[in-house]
This record gives sequence, C-alpha cells and structure tokens, in this order.
Amino acid sequence: MPAPIFTLTTDFGLKDPYVAEMKAVILSICPNAVVVDVTHEVEKFNVRNGAYMLASATPYFPQGSVHVAVVDPDVGAQRRPIIVKTAHSFFLGPDNGLLFLAAEAQGIKRIYEIASRRFMLPHVSSTFHGRDIFAPAAAHLANGVPAEEFGPEITEFAKPKFTKITRIKDSLVGEILHVDDFGNIITNIRAKDIASLKEGTVQAELPFVKLHLKLSKTYAEAKLQEPIALIGSHDFLEIALNQGNAAAKFNTKTGDKITLAVT
Amino acid sequence: MPAPIFTLTTDFGLKDPYVAEMKAVILSICPNAVVVDVTHEVEKFNVRNGAYMLASATPYFPQGSVHVAVVDPDVGAQRRPIIVKTAHSFFLGPDNGLLFLAAEAQGIKRIYEIASRRFMLPHVSSTFHGRDIFAPAAAHLANGVPAEEFGPEITEFAKPKFTKITRIKDSLVGEILHVDDFGNIITNIRAKDIASLKEGTVQAELPFVKLHLKLSKTYAEAKLQEPIALIGSHDFLEIALNQGNAAAKFNTKTGDKITLAVT
Amino acid sequence: MPAPIFTLTTDFGLKDPYVAEMKAVILSICPNAVVVDVTHEVEKFNVRNGAYMLASATPYFPQGSVHVAVVDPDVGAQRRPIIVKTAHSFFLGPDNGLLFLAAEAQGIKRIYEIASRRFMLPHVSSTFHGRDIFAPAAAHLANGVPAEEFGPEITEFAKPKFTKITRIKDSLVGEILHVDDFGNIITNIRAKDIASLKEGTVQAELPFVKLHLKLSKTYAEAKLQEPIALIGSHDFLEIALNQGNAAAKFNTKTGDKITLAVT
Repeated sequence: MPAPIFTLTTDFGLKDPYVAEMKAVILSICPNAVVVDVTHEVEKFNVRNGAYMLASATPYFPQGSVHVAVVDPDVGAQRRPIIVKTAHSFFLGPDNGLLFLAAEAQGIKRIYEIASRRFMLPHVSSTFHGRDIFAPAAAHLANGVPAEEFGPEITEFAKPKFTKITRIKDSLVGEILHVDDFGNIITNIRAKDIASLKEGTVQAELPFVKLHLKLSKTYAEAKLQEPIALIGSHDFLEIALNQGNAAAKFNTKTGDKITLAVT
Repeated sequence: MPAPIFTLTTDFGLKDPYVAEMKAVILSICPNAVVVDVTHEVEKFNVRNGAYMLASATPYFPQGSVHVAVVDPDVGAQRRPIIVKTAHSFFLGPDNGLLFLAAEAQGIKRIYEIASRRFMLPHVSSTFHGRDIFAPAAAHLANGVPAEEFGPEITEFAKPKFTKITRIKDSLVGEILHVDDFGNIITNIRAKDIASLKEGTVQAELPFVKLHLKLSKTYAEAKLQEPIALIGSHDFLEIALNQGNAAAKFNTKTGDKITLAVT
Repeated sequence: MPAPIFTLTTDFGLKDPYVAEMKAVILSICPNAVVVDVTHEVEKFNVRNGAYMLASATPYFPQGSVHVAVVDPDVGAQRRPIIVKTAHSFFLGPDNGLLFLAAEAQGIKRIYEIASRRFMLPHVSSTFHGRDIFAPAAAHLANGVPAEEFGPEITEFAKPKFTKITRIKDSLVGEILHVDDFGNIITNIRAKDIASLKEGTVQAELPFVKLHLKLSKTYAEAKLQEPIALIGSHDFLEIALNQGNAAAKFNTKTGDKITLAVT
C-alpha cells in the first residue's frame, strides 16, 4: 500500500519552526506519512490568495491525499475547523472559504466540524490550530478514522467572495488572483472567457497602465522584456514579460482590477 | 519498523545547495531516512536564535528522532563536534551552546565528541562540517552505531548565555528571543513569570516605545492592527498586532531588551 | 530495495505551487519516490548559475538518483527536452547546457530526446514543461522504463559557455559563479589553479575593489568582518568575510570578472 500523502498550504513563511511542528505531529501519529509543501508563502491573512494556491496544486495529487491549509486570521475566535470530504480526497482547514475553490473542483461530498478533543493534541493553544488541531486530525484521517467521528456534519459553510468576472458593455472586468515569483500577473479570466480573442490582440487596463498585448503561446515568442498575454499552465490569462518581471514593471498586485476590451 | 526521522536546523538559507548535500549524505548512508527541515533561516551566526528554533520544534517529534543543528561561526576552528544523547532522542551539532536548550528539555544523558574519522566523509572540508561530519554521523547513529563509538565522552560543554529574566524593583527585565515571519515579537518571559498579570494589562518597554497592552488569548480579539500581548503557542509572552507586523511597527529585533512593569 | 531518489533544481522560487505540482506528478506515477529539493532559488533564467548549483549537489547523491533541473527561458520554443544517462544516474532538463557540468562529472553515456507523448501528462502546456514533461518522464525512468523508449538518441547538444580561466601575463582571469546566502563570493578558480599561491597571499581584483587577502583554511581564522580568501567546500576559491557578507561589501555579483595576480 502506498504511503499516505499530505500537503500543507499556509501563510507561515519559511523562517519559523511552525511548519516543522505540523510535520512532527503528523509523523508522530502517522509514521509513514509523505508530506509535500504546496507553499508557505501565501500572502499573510489573504484567504483568497491561499485558496488560489491550493486549487492550483491539488489537481495533480493522487486520489486519497489529505490536504491541510491554514490561512487563518481568526484563529482562536469563532470560526470552525472543518474537514471537507470530496470524491477524490480530504481538505482540512478553517471554515473561512480557504478550502472551497479546491474542494469544489473535486466534487464536495460532505463537510464535518472538527469538534472531538480525542483527535487534537492534549493542549490546544489559542494561536496555532495548524499544529494542535489540523495536523493531528489529518493524520488520524489518513490512519483510517472515519470523518464523521471528528464532529457533526455541517451544511452551511463559508464561501470566499472571489470576484466574478463581469461584462460591462465591451469590457470584461476581472481581478488579479496572484503575482508569481517571476512577476507574472495571473488573472481570474479563463481561456473560455476570451475565446473570441484567441490568436489576436489583448487590450488590458490595469490600475496604472493600459496595454496592447499580443496573445502568445510561450514566453519565448516575445522579445526580451516585451510584455505579452498568454493562457498560463493553470488555464488563466496571464500578463508577463519575456524574462522580466511584469508586476514590478506595471506596479500591479494581488487583488487589483483588470479590464479587457472585448468587441 | 518506522523510518528514522532526522531534523535539520541551520542558518544556511534556502538558495544554496548546502542543505541538499546534507540530505544526500544522510540518504546515502541511511536510505529510508525521513528528513524534516525545522528551518534554515536562523539569523546568520546567531547561536541563541538557533537554540530557540530547535527547542521550539523538537518537543513535537517522535521518540528516537535524530536532530542535526548547524549554526557554526567557528567551523574549522577549535570547537568540537558533539552528540548529545537525551532520554528521548539524539542531538548533533557544534559544541557552542546551540543544542543545549532543546536537549536539556528532554533530559541530557550523555555527551560524546565526534572524533572518529570512520563516521565522517572521506574528505572533511574546513568550512562545511554539516555535510562532512554531522550528516554522516547522524545517519550512522540512526543505523544503530552506538554513540560511544564516535569518540570520547565529555562532561564539560558550552552552555549559551541566554539572558535570564531579572526582577528589579517593580520591573521584570527580559529579552527578545525571536521575531517571527508575521512580525510577532517573542520574548523569553513565560506564562508563569507573569501569573500575577493574567487577564490584566501589560506595560512593556521596548528600546523605542512604551506600550500599554491588553493581555489577550487570541490575535483576533484585538481590532485590526491593534497591538496586544499574549502567551503564544510555545508558552512565551508575545507582542503582536492583529493582522499586522509588530516588530516593524515598534522597530524591534532579536536580542533587544524588554522591561515589564509588575506591581 | 531502497526508494528511488529524485532531486529538483529550478529557478521557480518558493512562493508558488509550481514545485509542489512537479512533486505531485512524480508521486502519482512513482508512489514511493523520495524527492529532495536542491534549490529553487537559481537566479531566474541564469542557466550557468543553475548548472553550478546542480553540479555542486549531485556528487553527494546515491547511485541511481534521478536529477530534474529546470531553468528554461526558452520553454515552449524549439529547445528539446532531454535525458542524459551517466555512469551514475539520470539527468532530465532542457537542452540548453544546464545539465552539462553535473552530467559530465559523472561520465556521460548517452543522451535521448524526450519525444514520446506516452510519458508526458495528457495535456502539455506551453509554459510549464517541468510539470508536464520532465516530472512524468523522471518518474517513469525511476519505474524502470528504459531511456531509449522516450525518444531518439541524440549526439549533438548544447554546452554552456562557462568562462574558462585564462592566464594573461602574471594574471589569472576567472569569473564569479555564485554568491551564496552568506554573501561568500564563489569563483570558478580551483585549488589546483593557484597551487603556487597556497599558504600565501591572494591579490584579487573585482569590478569595484582591489584586495590583498590572506589565503586561509577557515572563516574563523580571520578577525570579525575581515576579508579572506579560501578554498571552499566545493574546491573553488572563495572570497569571504568572517561573519559578514563579502558580496554586499564589495558590490559583487554572479558573472563578474575576477583577476588574480600570480607571479
């Protein structure tokens, strides 16, 4: 039987021992665990950015993986810790919308609150539920404890208010989901939304700049430092510079509005 | 039998291949090793900051784990490489105080110098003992080589001069142990030291600011960006902003003095 | 039989889910894979810096390891994806010189293009061959698919134009290969190139400074913040400050020229 696979997605950063403590708890309960870091560099407290990261990576993991995500500005307050069971895997995290985008893509089956103290660390701190609640629950799930033993099933849960794409006259208005480490500007506009533009030109308006861009297939099609638009590897429209940092050049950040001309 | 667990704590950073070389050496000698990074972002050459990181994470790892820590400003000079055997696990690192805080919490049994060339790489560089001495020694230990075969037992070893908390009249004087990636300011003052203050107000003096803080249980109790004091998940007094960076706001860094009013 | 070991060397950085997606693909095809990150902080698009990182780490990995490296400014354009089979292991990456330094050190046996769609993900994006081509090919190789089944053998491939060391009159002219996270300046000059200088003094000229340096064995031999020269743990001449950042002090970066006086 293959070893159980866990993933971790947090805004904890990499300088602190917090992530290692979660791994230690998982390995203590489930000694043959394989733990993969999705990222610990979600923008701090940015639930939507975390939801995007989680939803990008999880489609590539095998059936049965256990995904733990913690971007949790309300830790210790009233938001519930939850388990989302999908057709494909389990997601654990705070009930603040973080898990929704990734879980829905797999088909949500049931959602449970993590309420039973039996599956938490003996001492639960008010500030680090990743270590004290989510890590042990994930490990017990992988060990075969049925999800319904963790707490009551719930039917109402938080959905993140991701900006919908809206069409206003000849414009498509979307939003910047993420700026990656190359400076590529990733929008929430998908290939199908701009099907009519394909092979053509993209007119895009960002907060500080208006751009006329060639819709390309690869970064290398453009000249060095030339801005282009392309459909990236997760099927979202990106604005990029060939071997340059588009976000720095155009002063753009996660959450900014983007307007495309569509005629 | 579960796979042997190793942890690595260093100030090597993440951009260089140094950490991978240590893992390669461990896997070459102990092929079923599971290696967990505690952190590689200890403040460079800051033995006390490394000791704090190691001591934070190690309590959560299973019995029998092998902890390797390298913050080693005197590599290649006269300080000895050592193995500390505790009731719970092994610690390997330079004899400069780095291992002491974590090892003492588990109960130190014996300490050995790593002297035998048999358990080092064939060529030992003067500048990278993490790869050439500590990684192979850790792997051989996990393979079952008794600690006493690595070298002579030693009874004198370096203890770090962590600042003790002192009481001067109506003040408790401590120190900043760590600033985490959220900007939370973590002191060396424990819950028991301020038991008399509990549920109350904390008056704290940092180098550049005097603060009157509510002693809270969670970050979310405060208003956005409001400074609070709380007992963090490792039982130390922290100063934090709800969803903000307290260290940046109050211009505070590791090693700074903190004075609390206690009446 | 020990679990197959994979290494990853990229310029993807650590904030994005890209590396996790590669690991997910590897684990989906080869469930007992052990994946070690060499680094994801290669200077972006800098093939020579990536080649140096890969060549530094790979000598320490066991026989049979599968090394995947992706620094790929021409992804999606005409450069080929290749497998290099050496006496010791496999290397996969773009045919742009990245693999050459590491592979040649192990003795190159044969080189194959990765051409067969059978060993790629069903949908191959134009921008992320690390996930869609290299990760699955690496996993199938580790599962025992012979390298010749991936595509035709090739005999011509890109070699990186690493600067050779040249001797001009009484000078040795080399280049900065890498600036590590400590700020140590690592050159392409090896111990044997300066055998005549050993135990002596090094006169070095960098773009913004001329230095007279003691050739030391350890960082700790120098006074705090004093600049020294030494042969580092990978056998290259380094310029360093004891507990300081030499690259910042001397305003030096990867690719800069260095001239040594040899008399």
